[in-house]
Amino acid sequence: MNDTPEMASGLLGDAGGRISADQIRHVFARYGEVQTAGDIEGILALFAENAVLRDPANAPEHRGKPAIRAFFEAGKAASGGAIEMKLEGGVRIAGNEAAAAFIARTVNNSPVFRVETLDVMTFNEEGLITQMIAYWGPDNFTQES
Amino acid sequence: MNDTPEMASGLLGDAGGRISADQIRHVFARYGEVQTAGDIEGILALFAENAVLRDPANAPEHRGKPAIRAFFEAGKAASGGAIEMKLEGGVRIAGNEAAAAFIARTVNNSPVFRVETLDVMTFNEEGLITQMIAYWGPDNFTQES
Repeated sequence: MNDTPEMASGLLGDAGGRISADQIRHVFARYGEVQTAGDIEGILALFAENAVLRDPANAPEHRGKPAIRAFFEAGKAASGGAIEMKLEGGVRIAGNEAAAAFIARTVNNSPVFRVETLDVMTFNEEGLITQMIAYWGPDNFTQES
Repeated sequence: MNDTPEMASGLLGDAGGRISADQIRHVFARYGEVQTAGDIEGILALFAENAVLRDPANAPEHRGKPAIRAFFEAGKAASGGAIEMKLEGGVRIAGNEAAAAFIARTVNNSPVFRVETLDVMTFNEEGLITQMIAYWGPDNFTQES
């Protein structure tokens, strides 16, 4: 639904220059796909050169693609391989910022851990991620097997 | 689950001084309850005096309890009364920051709108919200009736 209900229009910010909701939903879906495939190049292709990542939110930031690459490579290695990631619910979109919950499963690790995660992404006008903050912690882990 | 899997411990930030996961989950649940009840005092009781609210994320901020009160009162009036809010999925917790998705329904408005929202909250050591950012926009509205 693309029409803004009148009751909401007064609360919404300026929509000028924003990328489309479809583009944003595509990036969230694609992020889940490339994580699930263990495709580090595919993950990096979603980020702008000078992007900033905090994953989780209370950890030090990773700034720029080389640092972001190192982070995802380390995460993949620590998890025994690719991490399955599936969206849980719809992508919430506020202009060029958006957020969605994911269920991550360390399917290549024994035991398998199920982790409830949630990513907030900020996009530039080209639809690339300029900032990503991931919300998860020890209380979001469940051991499956 | 309160034990941190070994594979995650290296990624997690310093846990010093944080409030408990149970406290954080309680605030998210309580926020849904007081919104559903239209209890403005109950909503405000969750916030620190100098809290900052952006709702939605791409709108101007509301700083301090008087401004936050005015915002929630206006939202309630614009929605015809209280807005039903139910958590969608678990609360994701990264130290003193946490996030969760909600389904909001304007049950006192005709037509009823269903809105997929998502709140990121930062807490002080007393468990009060110091910052809340809400992610939603026109693409998250569905008309129910």
